[in-house]
Amino acid sequence: MSQPSNDFRSIVGRFPCQVHWGDCDPAGIIFYPTYFRWMDAAAWAFFDSVGYTAKRMRAEHLAMPLVSAQCEFLAPAEQGDHCEVRSRVARFGGKSFSLAHEVARADGTVLAKGAETRVWGRFANGPGTPLKGEAIPEALKDLFRAR
Amino acid sequence: MSQPSNDFRSIVGRFPCQVHWGDCDPAGIIFYPTYFRWMDAAAWAFFDSVGYTAKRMRAEHLAMPLVSAQCEFLAPAEQGDHCEVRSRVARFGGKSFSLAHEVARADGTVLAKGAETRVWGRFANGPGTPLKGEAIPEALKDLFRAR
Amino acid sequence: MSQPSNDFRSIVGRFPCQVHWGDCDPAGIIFYPTYFRWMDAAAWAFFDSVGYTAKRMRAEHLAMPLVSAQCEFLAPAEQGDHCEVRSRVARFGGKSFSLAHEVARADGTVLAKGAETRVWGRFANGPGTPLKGEAIPEALKDLFRAR
Amino acid sequence: MSQPSNDFRSIVGRFPCQVHWGDCDPAGIIFYPTYFRWMDAAAWAFFDSVGYTAKRMRAEHLAMPLVSAQCEFLAPAEQGDHCEVRSRVARFGGKSFSLAHEVARADGTVLAKGAETRVWGRFANGPGTPLKGEAIPEALKDLFRAR
Repeated sequence: MSQPSNDFRSIVGRFPCQVHWGDCDPAGIIFYPTYFRWMDAAAWAFFDSVGYTAKRMRAEHLAMPLVSAQCEFLAPAEQGDHCEVRSRVARFGGKSFSLAHEVARADGTVLAKGAETRVWGRFANGPGTPLKGEAIPEALKDLFRAR
Repeated sequence: MSQPSNDFRSIVGRFPCQVHWGDCDPAGIIFYPTYFRWMDAAAWAFFDSVGYTAKRMRAEHLAMPLVSAQCEFLAPAEQGDHCEVRSRVARFGGKSFSLAHEVARADGTVLAKGAETRVWGRFANGPGTPLKGEAIPEALKDLFRAR
Repeated sequence: MSQPSNDFRSIVGRFPCQVHWGDCDPAGIIFYPTYFRWMDAAAWAFFDSVGYTAKRMRAEHLAMPLVSAQCEFLAPAEQGDHCEVRSRVARFGGKSFSLAHEVARADGTVLAKGAETRVWGRFANGPGTPLKGEAIPEALKDLFRAR
Repeated sequence: MSQPSNDFRSIVGRFPCQVHWGDCDPAGIIFYPTYFRWMDAAAWAFFDSVGYTAKRMRAEHLAMPLVSAQCEFLAPAEQGDHCEVRSRVARFGGKSFSLAHEVARADGTVLAKGAETRVWGRFANGPGTPLKGEAIPEALKDLFRAR
């Protein structure tokens, strides 16, 4: 039986990234939507790490569109900062799931804490055609379960 | 005396925008960080509309860095969709404030509902130098008050 | 008969845009890839203006992928600047065409001059499937011809 | 004596990058301004590699604004592709210089070839203040010379 979602003990994905010149704004710090770009890329990398590569997602017409996203910004990041997004599954629901992301700088400072809620779905006939939510397979949940 | 923040009756800012080819992802719908780019631009346009133009913000060393941001995605937007971000002040605190943003498509469909919490601050010595929060002037609050 | 391509007398498309906070870098001026984002959006708007809307392009499986792009940056743009991309067809080839773009600020200053060379093509079976170049229809060329 | 600029034998910088979901467009391939974002980041990484880190550039009020940029797109990149931008100095002029960038996928395929011409300059008084071109120091040129 699947564990209750609020108890889900998730593995942790690690997505390295760096603050580039063009990611910053005139204040000289990271432009905040950059964190959401990173969290999205980290989500895809997290799924890639358990076997759901971009290629497989495409081939099987799978997608994981967003229901909501949020982020708290704790410390400013500057150009050149090496960072890592640490992602885990916070909750698996029926057709939706939530990821918790933490962005840490190489010196250990946590820069941001965010979350994404996504639907697990399939395109009727490839990208660009309607997408329908699907029950998240137990086998998929297992791939993210910490042991 | 300033009204309690949860009662703040705000004017509404309107920021027109459009979904471009490059704002969309392989699913053929808007890439979600685009909504945060829009909300940020809408926030600046909202302040511009009451006299705090980008030029003035720069000249007076003012900025409004983010504390947090969140968004719910209600309906998918496609390339070519004409949209409008409707912004209002949800709360004025001492040094921070919250904006509520609603993104609506020209046909009236609400695509997304988001919020940003920001600090009102001033650079010590122009952009790139440390930024310190400041008490939000009552005169500034008045500019956003609906009459 | 179609005019020689180097003589093509094109209509001019006009795409309004504005420099937003997040379009700028720590130098306080526009981050240059923004100009390419604008030129791409201007190209789509130009085609939209002659009847090739995003919706039609999607429905007919049409696309116009890039062969090359270039831009000269003549004057710096700052946050808040209202601009316009003025686009025209510089050349129609067999399956490819070139657009010339000029980015002007509201005060008349030309900020940038760029060009894109694109292929006119069709997806085998909708977005995400292979794209094949097609002869540019004479009727399409006519839509862009100045009278 | 400095070698003639067209003979400049440059070291090669290597900037790893990956095509993310949000870097792609509805055609399922990389949105082309992404290449320019990468080339810009690669340019900064190239300078970082010879000791001109972002921190140092900031501290010394240095910047390298663009004069022009161009790119040819040779093969489409898809989400998940691991790439590398290989950068070299193509030319050192008095106050300007050109970088040649090649974007290659992990399988060896060259996806794009681009170039940037930049000015070597210094802000009068930190970011946001006027920037003035400066003669490129011979010592800087030497750092990029292949031995």
